[in-house]
Amino acid sequence: MVKMRDLDSQETYLADRMGLAFEMRDLVGSGPVPQARYAAPYGVVGFGEGWWAAQLARDWVPAEFTHAGTQFVLEGGYDLGGAAGAGLYAASSGAEIVRLGWAENTEVELLASALSPYRYLRFLLLATGQRDELSRIDQALLLERDRLRPEVSLDKNPAKFLAYSLLERTPMFVVPEGYPGLAAAMQQTLARVGKSLSFTPPPSALEFFVTGLEARHEQGDPIAAVLVGEDERKKIAQQILESRVDTLIELPEPEAEGMLAKALAYWYRITWAAYYLALLYGVEPGDWEVLDHLRQAT
Amino acid sequence: MVKMRDLDSQETYLADRMGLAFEMRDLVGSGPVPQARYAAPYGVVGFGEGWWAAQLARDWVPAEFTHAGTQFVLEGGYDLGGAAGAGLYAASSGAEIVRLGWAENTEVELLASALSPYRYLRFLLLATGQRDELSRIDQALLLERDRLRPEVSLDKNPAKFLAYSLLERTPMFVVPEGYPGLAAAMQQTLARVGKSLSFTPPPSALEFFVTGLEARHEQGDPIAAVLVGEDERKKIAQQILESRVDTLIELPEPEAEGMLAKALAYWYRITWAAYYLALLYGVEPGDWEVLDHLRQAT
Repeated sequence: MVKMRDLDSQETYLADRMGLAFEMRDLVGSGPVPQARYAAPYGVVGFGEGWWAAQLARDWVPAEFTHAGTQFVLEGGYDLGGAAGAGLYAASSGAEIVRLGWAENTEVELLASALSPYRYLRFLLLATGQRDELSRIDQALLLERDRLRPEVSLDKNPAKFLAYSLLERTPMFVVPEGYPGLAAAMQQTLARVGKSLSFTPPPSALEFFVTGLEARHEQGDPIAAVLVGEDERKKIAQQILESRVDTLIELPEPEAEGMLAKALAYWYRITWAAYYLALLYGVEPGDWEVLDHLRQAT
Repeated sequence: MVKMRDLDSQETYLADRMGLAFEMRDLVGSGPVPQARYAAPYGVVGFGEGWWAAQLARDWVPAEFTHAGTQFVLEGGYDLGGAAGAGLYAASSGAEIVRLGWAENTEVELLASALSPYRYLRFLLLATGQRDELSRIDQALLLERDRLRPEVSLDKNPAKFLAYSLLERTPMFVVPEGYPGLAAAMQQTLARVGKSLSFTPPPSALEFFVTGLEARHEQGDPIAAVLVGEDERKKIAQQILESRVDTLIELPEPEAEGMLAKALAYWYRITWAAYYLALLYGVEPGDWEVLDHLRQAT
């Protein structure tokens, strides 16, 4: 049993030695901005840390590769040579190649961070003339921040409440269709910030719920099903899961316009919950040190 | 502690009341075959149980939707109206629509089954003139079957051995790039046949391994990392995982030619392991009954 810490007490925040709370608070507007005009048509491909932004970019940049205009290559994180080895330069010959990431010789430097999905996406939106979409995202994130930051006490703070609900449980993220990559992005941020394991069901999730959660009752951790948003599917999932998991948590829709703004707002909310969860476990919510060890080793 | 059952003893197989072993043994060549010629170009879209075959079909049918030729709609399983509601008929107007599944009024009947991924894929390959590819798949599955079926004793049977290794552990499937959907398909089959929970890491998996598996040490089930195939990434994953999971299991590459044949062979091998795992837990490996209850409820 973990000693129960108080998220409304300043002492609890000493575990945040790197000050991740400030990076999270100042997320909106952070990251590199385009210093040049980039010609259309566009292609976007992502490796390592850049995977989610590249997947979300399919919303307005349909092509992975382009032979004219600008080829964006998001290559941060531990892509293990994925970007270099993907036949990328053949697939995009004829286009200007713009690499974003923290490897040497990238055109745009973007440091490794659990928060980088926003920054990759922001750069892409600015570079491809989607300022309105970025405004919708920023507005949604600022609204979330005002409700979720440490100064807001537990009784009014859904992220703190969520962290207590996830403590010593294994979350399963159930996300409606139409949010590409969101479930995996939540799993990623809960790991990197919350230092906790979570999982996502496969497509055709109902069959999985009915069969895969059966044997579980005899085994380890209790599962917390985190149900995202509102759709017909969610109601049925809820009925099926009620008797099969330890607790059901509903994440209400953020005040946001459009899929991208909603997806980023959900992700940001879970990142705040992951932040508080790390504090409840008394571990560092930043991951710079552990990833530096990884970088040395690879 | 589960009573340890003997996979080389006939008595253990009494739990297979529905005879799933026969369906698994006779998988190659099963399922519907095209009764007509289908004109190109083709589009393939998948819902519910059909999701994986549709994703694999991207290998030779690039389009989800087509306005000419033939639009295949894989709609088995509990798609919850996904196929009907997807704007499908607008997106494919002009094409002949061929629906496969077990709903009423489908053009091609395909019964719900944990084994249906093969059958959807087989129909598609035959209907689009890819007989050679199907032969490669069938050959690979027959080779796997000869090594994995119940008559082959534990000391020579990798699937039985794998089942013992997964007992009372939670598998994490680590799959190299280039096998679309394989990790989730493994997760699905372990649930439907093995009645067991497993999970898949998000993209950018190394960051996840380093951070997400930390808190886990204080918690529930031991994790068995199942590392698929051989690539550079696997070696690094192995180094990182060694100290973070309970056991590492390597799945050697199947004797198979091409991505599709390899992907199906891996899936079939895990399905056999899931079958034996259900027997070790003393539960029914078939899932017809539980899914029938689901059908009643939805």
